Amino acid sequence: MRCEIIAIGTELLLGVIVDSNSSWIGEQLALAGIDSHFQVKVGDNFARIESCIRQALERSDAVICCGGLGPTQDDITRDVIAKVMGVAMRRDEAIAGKIRSMFESRGRVMTANNLRQADIPVGAAPIPQMPGTAPGLVCPVGDKVIYAVPGVPREMKEMVSGTVLPDLARRSGQSAVIASRTLRTWGQSESGLDEMLAARMAELDTLGNPTIAFNASGIEGIKIRVTAKCDDEASAQRILDAEEALLRGILGPVVFGVDEQSMEVVVLEALRKRGLTAAAHETVTGGILSARMSHRDADFATFRGARVSSEQRAAGQTPEQRATRAASAAQAEFKTDIGLAVASPDPAEGQHPGTVLLAVATPSGVQVEKTVLPGDRARLRDYSVISLLDLLRRTLMAG
Amino acid sequence: MRCEIIAIGTELLLGVIVDSNSSWIGEQLALAGIDSHFQVKVGDNFARIESCIRQALERSDAVICCGGLGPTQDDITRDVIAKVMGVAMRRDEAIAGKIRSMFESRGRVMTANNLRQADIPVGAAPIPQMPGTAPGLVCPVGDKVIYAVPGVPREMKEMVSGTVLPDLARRSGQSAVIASRTLRTWGQSESGLDEMLAARMAELDTLGNPTIAFNASGIEGIKIRVTAKCDDEASAQRILDAEEALLRGILGPVVFGVDEQSMEVVVLEALRKRGLTAAAHETVTGGILSARMSHRDADFATFRGARVSSEQRAAGQTPEQRATRAASAAQAEFKTDIGLAVASPDPAEGQHPGTVLLAVATPSGVQVEKTVLPGDRARLRDYSVISLLDLLRRTLMAG
Repeated sequence: MRCEIIAIGTELLLGVIVDSNSSWIGEQLALAGIDSHFQVKVGDNFARIESCIRQALERSDAVICCGGLGPTQDDITRDVIAKVMGVAMRRDEAIAGKIRSMFESRGRVMTANNLRQADIPVGAAPIPQMPGTAPGLVCPVGDKVIYAVPGVPREMKEMVSGTVLPDLARRSGQSAVIASRTLRTWGQSESGLDEMLAARMAELDTLGNPTIAFNASGIEGIKIRVTAKCDDEASAQRILDAEEALLRGILGPVVFGVDEQSMEVVVLEALRKRGLTAAAHETVTGGILSARMSHRDADFATFRGARVSSEQRAAGQTPEQRATRAASAAQAEFKTDIGLAVASPDPAEGQHPGTVLLAVATPSGVQVEKTVLPGDRARLRDYSVISLLDLLRRTLMAG
Repeated sequence: MRCEIIAIGTELLLGVIVDSNSSWIGEQLALAGIDSHFQVKVGDNFARIESCIRQALERSDAVICCGGLGPTQDDITRDVIAKVMGVAMRRDEAIAGKIRSMFESRGRVMTANNLRQADIPVGAAPIPQMPGTAPGLVCPVGDKVIYAVPGVPREMKEMVSGTVLPDLARRSGQSAVIASRTLRTWGQSESGLDEMLAARMAELDTLGNPTIAFNASGIEGIKIRVTAKCDDEASAQRILDAEEALLRGILGPVVFGVDEQSMEVVVLEALRKRGLTAAAHETVTGGILSARMSHRDADFATFRGARVSSEQRAAGQTPEQRATRAASAAQAEFKTDIGLAVASPDPAEGQHPGTVLLAVATPSGVQVEKTVLPGDRARLRDYSVISLLDLLRRTLMAG
């Protein structure tokens, strides 16, 4: 079963709106075991929308058209679909009634063009979910199908979940369950991970199930997604569990979390489990560490706070000494178990550009690690934060 | 001149990554007066990438392929382009040298697969901008052209701005100059701005040049983009100057900046011009204010720092008093002219959800403003920062 997605709207091509609808639908299709090989953006132009729909019907079994169902003259998706189906339009009185009563219940005046939304291709079935004034449609074309859903994300999601996905599942007759899990890593390049996992990936190529894919996500680290396809959910989860254990065995502490666990979520959890508190002196990182930690620790129960200011480069102090002192000072000022700091050498100190000193002060002493980070100043700051949190994570795990 | 965009990567189809690259490129093409009628997402599959490129070359003059230039076996964009061009691959020693020295300068070990990135189609010219290890390519196909750029947004943008857009302009032979300017606003809704500008927009509909468009950008405020099309740059700039003056006359202090001037850039400039320093006590905002200010004031010369910690809700103090005291405390602690703080009522204090108290302490007293912000906690934090900086901006302008 293959399904294409066509996102319709000139503002998508012009970059006024980012097409996040296709991404969401793509994820739902993948989770439902339906392939989506092409996803297209096209403007509000009759001939071009028509050519996209015709091509999609040629190379796939189904197509989801997203957008162009509103009341204005620009909204022509309904008319294009009628042409592709080779049918006329008809006024659907049930839809017209819903639109009228929606306006009445909101105390608004309905303009005549709003009823254009009740004109649908003969043979098309309205989608029962209708959270807005734009009706969605299921439009059979031979043994294939065109779905039309609005571009408003909330309305689109309700219709896709409520009607489109169940209808696709019924048509595909597929009962397989697809489940996936993402291992989050830090401290290895994509090619480094590729080499560490080369042997296992070759095995999986032969087995065919589960599959593995990499996704480099900047300061979120490199993600390894494992996807399993089985007859039932329990078997899929067993395969994911086994594969996660195997990959963790190969990668060791490079794996810091799973799925939605960001580095700060993992670190806060590790601190809480050990009953520890932490604070920081932020210079290089300028508040970014605090912003990330406080987002996940709203009442400052574990991450107690930070002092943000410029780095004091007193004569005779090495960057290592500065990082150590700043981490210890944070510990003392906020009366916490852990103190965190990053120092950067003065350009005059002759270190490699991108060099930073990460310091984690614990009750039993201070860990300092030197690292060279890539990129411009903005990236240096972000990477410093994650690298510092990763040092804290490894220190806690070792302790 | 028509240019299609093909975003390459299975993770785009699966919704793991949202394709914001195409939106950005689409915007740049529109600003350059180049039409983009179709934008496609396709997975890491040789035959399907090939069919997309061939179709794009049929119906357009140029195609920008974004992604699939990395070092792994999945990255096949280079090879597909070679097939479409009908040429073999060659190892480019200049690129190989750059990749080697990039790894050396970071003190990292280069794995053999990294050099795959130096294998390019015969006849393709490397794009001079190369901020990462993936080279971009300009690949002529008859009188048409394929551009290949990496999927990493920062690298893609540098190459598109530095090479792709100038090359497209040269190829199109277009002599009209399209220039645009964005007025940045804060404190008015989109429909509010729409009403304020209704008369002027009706006039411009008749004139046809310049044009105006709104773009709501969350915490970056609502942007009003003015676009002028003229025979030469000087005339276009004159039209933009006149329109900016006219719109500022209508909108007054709602306009806080122009083009890339974010709120913190504008505020830092206003502080510097007056020789003032500032500091903050961050509770609700948890470090976000410091992160934004220090990004633009690396040496903390103007924004001297902040203390980040939980809000102390002493008995008998109103939120107004807490905001006032926190702002004054920041002023005292960091010995600055200006102190900044945001307080939020305790749920027990019975205020409307989303209520925050913004405080700006100056040498002549403390300004406190109460506002109700939309959204969840993450948005509340971000909006608090921008609203606080906007209050500082208005206070400085009035002083």
